[in-house]
Order: sequence, then structure tokens, then C-alpha cells
Amino acid sequence: MSARREPIEYADASPEVRAVYDDIMATRKTDWVNNFWKVLAHDPPTLRRIWGSIKEVMAPGALDPLTKELLYVAVSASNSCRYCIASHSAAARRKGMTEAQYSELLAIVGLANETNRLVSALDVPVDEAFL
Amino acid sequence: MSARREPIEYADASPEVRAVYDDIMATRKTDWVNNFWKVLAHDPPTLRRIWGSIKEVMAPGALDPLTKELLYVAVSASNSCRYCIASHSAAARRKGMTEAQYSELLAIVGLANETNRLVSALDVPVDEAFL
Amino acid sequence: MSARREPIEYADASPEVRAVYDDIMATRKTDWVNNFWKVLAHDPPTLRRIWGSIKEVMAPGALDPLTKELLYVAVSASNSCRYCIASHSAAARRKGMTEAQYSELLAIVGLANETNRLVSALDVPVDEAFL
Amino acid sequence: MSARREPIEYADASPEVRAVYDDIMATRKTDWVNNFWKVLAHDPPTLRRIWGSIKEVMAPGALDPLTKELLYVAVSASNSCRYCIASHSAAARRKGMTEAQYSELLAIVGLANETNRLVSALDVPVDEAFL
Amino acid sequence: MSARREPIEYADASPEVRAVYDDIMATRKTDWVNNFWKVLAHDPPTLRRIWGSIKEVMAPGALDPLTKELLYVAVSASNSCRYCIASHSAAARRKGMTEAQYSELLAIVGLANETNRLVSALDVPVDEAFL
Amino acid sequence: MSARREPIEYADASPEVRAVYDDIMATRKTDWVNNFWKVLAHDPPTLRRIWGSIKEVMAPGALDPLTKELLYVAVSASNSCRYCIASHSAAARRKGMTEAQYSELLAIVGLANETNRLVSALDVPVDEAFL
Repeated sequence: MSARREPIEYADASPEVRAVYDDIMATRKTDWVNNFWKVLAHDPPTLRRIWGSIKEVMAPGALDPLTKELLYVAVSASNSCRYCIASHSAAARRKGMTEAQYSELLAIVGLANETNRLVSALDVPVDEAFL
Repeated sequence: MSARREPIEYADASPEVRAVYDDIMATRKTDWVNNFWKVLAHDPPTLRRIWGSIKEVMAPGALDPLTKELLYVAVSASNSCRYCIASHSAAARRKGMTEAQYSELLAIVGLANETNRLVSALDVPVDEAFL
Repeated sequence: MSARREPIEYADASPEVRAVYDDIMATRKTDWVNNFWKVLAHDPPTLRRIWGSIKEVMAPGALDPLTKELLYVAVSASNSCRYCIASHSAAARRKGMTEAQYSELLAIVGLANETNRLVSALDVPVDEAFL
Repeated sequence: MSARREPIEYADASPEVRAVYDDIMATRKTDWVNNFWKVLAHDPPTLRRIWGSIKEVMAPGALDPLTKELLYVAVSASNSCRYCIASHSAAARRKGMTEAQYSELLAIVGLANETNRLVSALDVPVDEAFL
Repeated sequence: MSARREPIEYADASPEVRAVYDDIMATRKTDWVNNFWKVLAHDPPTLRRIWGSIKEVMAPGALDPLTKELLYVAVSASNSCRYCIASHSAAARRKGMTEAQYSELLAIVGLANETNRLVSALDVPVDEAFL
Repeated sequence: MSARREPIEYADASPEVRAVYDDIMATRKTDWVNNFWKVLAHDPPTLRRIWGSIKEVMAPGALDPLTKELLYVAVSASNSCRYCIASHSAAARRKGMTEAQYSELLAIVGLANETNRLVSALDVPVDEAFL
């Protein structure tokens, strides 16, 4: 008995789950589904809801798809989520992220975590210009 | 006696601190300095070091200045740093961020925090394709 | 020389440590002790103090034992503590948590992390009704 | 120009936003909407999406509504989100949470944060029984 | 009805709570009690338990009292807990912390938060020498 | 293609990177470089900048080197950064940290994380004496 849930492969999935997998593959123009979704599949309503949110939030909009993916990587790196960094940096690379861009992104994540703590610790008063 | 340190205004600053203030204003092409630096000024070596890091990391590079600022805002929002969100979203607006872009950025920050926790809690195994 | 401390088994434990192990097993009506305690045993005062806190806080009270364990799992999942999720979800299962309940718990943990960040980032003013 | 967005009152809201406000009030059997939604209303798609998620996740299921709300409060308290604690503890009280239950919940949140850090710092190996 | 609990003054406290207040004042050789304890006093068992833990953990030991207080300030600053920074930096000053030491402490807190994120994001393999 | 970057050994490093490695070894009076730097070496400007910050912040000052290292370990433990705990606790041991001191440090990290959450959740008002 474990906290880890095994990925559910397409062949073993219910029609409800397969429908989500199919939409993921169609939306991403790919023929595979990564483990995050296969593990979420143990809870089909959550699988459907989270995929719906990702599909809506990450769709092209006022921000282009690469910028959106970079933001996702940055938050995941700031949160030290190893799987999330791996999956979203892979997605960012597919959308054109270069190694130099990734290095700059990580430098920003690191520095923001430093200054965020200094600001909070020093309880810096918000400037009138920012109100 | 307080944990908060009062901002040090230009008129009251030492030559070492004024030199940093001058470089901040020259680099940013502006005639004022926000409170973060004025509070850091109680510790001149840290003021100089952090400004040096910000100047280097946020300079145009493989990522453009607006994208860099968006990443800074996203990490600050993910860390719930109120002052940092205020100051960096103001900077992002000066560099062209629209309200629609800001809304999309916040949606990504929120969603990434949700999926980061699901991934960690479920201990999702990293896909071979990501290794 | 390592940051990791090896678990101290009952046979190798001092009388002071054995007394805590005995109380853990008696309280939990079980014949084994999990690694958290065996690692804490390198620091007997901390072992005794933390066990005392757990025993007091997790005892039946205004909240029933299962609800208490669910809350412990939720915080551990929100903090991405893999061992803590494993051990406390196992404890929750022993107290009756079903897989459906666990799925719902995780969905709440994920969603709360999303809305917590949106609330902070937007600096939502507290409603009069909540003051 | 500010990072804070003002709450949008019903009278000033678009039909799309009003429809969400109406559903919130109908679902909760109340005649008012708290500020979180009124601030999210600046971004109608996010307002609609987040409300949809809350409505689905917090609906009665394998866990009863009070337990769900307690879990939401616990995560919010662990994340130090002041507004979230205020709004969700108010919701929990409406669903029957007593002050004694709230005290026990906070004690668990505090203790879990303590042991989560000890576990991570000591890199406790996962017991075979938990795999 | 609010999430905030008002401080309970000595004059209004039960004998059980007064006994803890008395021990706090005697241990700290002072004639007042700060708000943290007066707010915790709404839950006497938690008041007693947390004070017992603080008294034990912060007592002189292998680390001297000032170093212990500096560590408490550093963790509180890293966690952006404004009240905790205020109260523990005041305690550290009473035990001899200078402004120069506080500045250096904050610089370490900031830098550790930066490098912690870089290390996690880059998934740095642990050196053999550290195992 | 992976999120992990392999360590760059001295023999394979560019002159710019070797110069940093040389300075690390000279400053630390040692003949090896740990993996953090070898991984950062994929981004030479960040390698140089972060090393410069560490060298400046961790140099003897108002706080002695061991106290500084203990603070670094405490923040890393609070942030659950496994590599950082391993590397900085090794450094602290080289500077004289005993196992008893390490145990006390961890106890403080755990307890501070507990009380930090209680303080935030209870929204404790800052005492006048701390203002």
C-alpha cells in the first residue's frame, strides 16, 4: 500500500480517461501522454478538470505560448518541483527555448527568491508610486 | 527599536550609497529610486552587491527585458511578496505589459502552484522522455 | 560523513529511546516503529518532545482521529514532503480513509494552493464580514 | 497605477460576471459575494474557471462539506494566506466548525510544519511498509 | 466574527494561563509577555505545549543563546513571518546582536534562498564526499 | 534531453570557468570543487556572480564563519533542499559544528516553522515594544 499511484496506460484506461488522453494528444499534436496525466487518471474528474484548466490557461492569448511555458517553468523551479521542471522545460524547449534562455530564466528565479526574502524581512514600505 | 529600517533618502546618503543610487537612476533612465534600495542602503555592501546582480541578470540577453520582468513578477507572485509584486509589475507595465498579459500571468502562477502540489503529492515518476 | 542519520533499531537503542519506542507502539497498538522516530532517536530530547507533541495533538478531541490525520496529510502534501505524505496517508488509511477521500483531499490541496496565490498576488482586501 | 485591483460590485459588472456572481449566491444560499470573486472579476475567464473548480471540488462527495472546508483552512494557514484563512474559516464556522475544532486544526498545521522540516532535513528513508 | 483572536491580558487570564505567563516572565527575567502568547492563550493546552517546547529548545546547550536566536530569526526571515522577525530580532538584540550582525544574517538568508532554488532547479547530484 | 545538467570537470572547463574553480579552491584551501559549481559552470556569468556573492557574504565579518555556516544550513533545512543541507552541513562540520549543535539547530528549524505558521494563522498583532 503506497502513496504513489501507478500511471494508467491508454490500453488500461476507461473511455472517460481515454477521451482526455485523446484530447491531450490532439491539442499537443503528439502521440504520447506524460505520466502526470496517467497518474491523475486514478481520479477522472480531477484529470478532466485539470486538463481543462491547462488547456485554457496555456492556450495562445495576450502572451505567446513560449512565454507562458517559461512562466510555468519559473514557478515550478521556484517551488523546487523536479518533475514539473523536467516536463515544462521539455515543453519550453519544444516551443523554442534555448539553453541560454533557460540559464537566464534560472538566474531570475534565483535572484527573485533572494530579493523577495530581503524585502519581506526588511518589511519595505510600498512606494507611493506603486499604490 | 524595530525590525523595520527607514528608507535613506539621497540627501542623507553616504557617497558610497549615492553612487549606487546614481547608477540605478542612470540605468533605469529615471530620476527616483524605490524604497527597496533605500532600505537596503543601511547595509552598503549588500546594496552594492544586490544592485550589481539585478543589473546583470535583468539586462537584455537571450530573453528580452519584458519577458525577464514577467518572470520576476511570476516568482514574486508565487512567493506572495506584496512589495515585490507591486514594484515588478510596475516595472513590467513600463516595459509594455498589458492588463490582459498580467491576468494571464497570474492564471499561470495559480495553476502552476496547483499542479506542482499534485505532482509532488502523487510522486509522479519522471518520464523516460524527460531524462 | 553524511547529512543522513541512520535509523536506530530497538535492539541498539538506549533505555531512554526504548521508552519512547515502547510508548509509540502502545499508543498506536502496533509492534513496529517507523523510520522518522528511529532517525530522531539520535537526539533523544527531541525524540521525546516531538513524540509528546504528536501524542497530544493527534489524540481524539473536538476533531476525530481520521479528520486530524487528513489535515496532517493535507499540510504534508501542500509542503511536498514525500516521506510525510507516505507515512500520514498510511496512517489515514488505517483510520479509514478511502481512495476516493484521498483523491478529494488532494484536489483541495491543489486548488487551495492555486487560490492562495491568486489572493496574495491580487492583494484582495478582507471583507468587513470577515473582520 | 497599482498592483491591487478594486472589487467590481454587482451593479457595475458585465452580464458574464453577473452570471457567475448569481451562481455563487445560489450555490451558497446567500445574498452576497466576497471580495475574492469581485477582484477576480477583472479577468472573467479566470473568474469562471476558478469558480467552476471551487464549485466542483468543494461539493459534497466522499468527504463531507465541513471536512473539506477544514482542509482548505489548514492549507491556507500553512501557506500564511491571511485573506484565505479569514474567508475559509468563516465558511467553516458556517458549516459548524467550533472554536475548539479550529484550535486543534491550527495545532496540527503548526506541528505538521515542524515535523515536515525535520523529516526533510534528516532525509528519512521511506519505510518498506509505506512503499 | 473574525479569524483574529484578541490577546488575553494577565488580569483576564485563567489560573492555568497565568501560570504559563508567570513562567515566561520568570524564565526571561522580564515583567511582560508578548502578544504571541496572549493570543495562543485562547487554547491553553497549545499555549502550555508550545511554551514548553520553546523553553526547552532555546535553553543554553551546545549552541549559545544568541546563536540560537539568530537561527530563529533566519528561519523566520526566510519564511517571511513579519511578527516572528520582529519578536525574535528584538530578542536577538537583547542577547547582543548588533546591526552589523543582523545585516550579515539577512544577506545569508537571501543568498541561501537563491542558491537553494538553483540547486533544486538544476537537480545537482550529491557529491560522494557528502554521502 | 534533460533538465539536469552534468557537472563540468576541471579538465573540460573553459579558462573562464577554471579561474572560478581555482578561486574556490584557493579560498577554501582545498583541492576539489563540489558539484554545485560544476553544474553552474554551464552558465559562466552566473557561476562567476554566485561565487562572488558567496565569497563576499560568507567571509568572516561581524559574524564568525561557523555561525554563518549554521545560518546557511538552517535556511536550507527550512527550505528542504537536500543537496544544500548535505553540502552546507559538511562545511559547518569542517568549521567545527558538533553533532549536538546540529541536533539543536534542527530542533530550532522545526520549532520556528511551527510557530511561524501559528503566528501567521492567528494574525498576531505586533507588540508596541517591537515597533
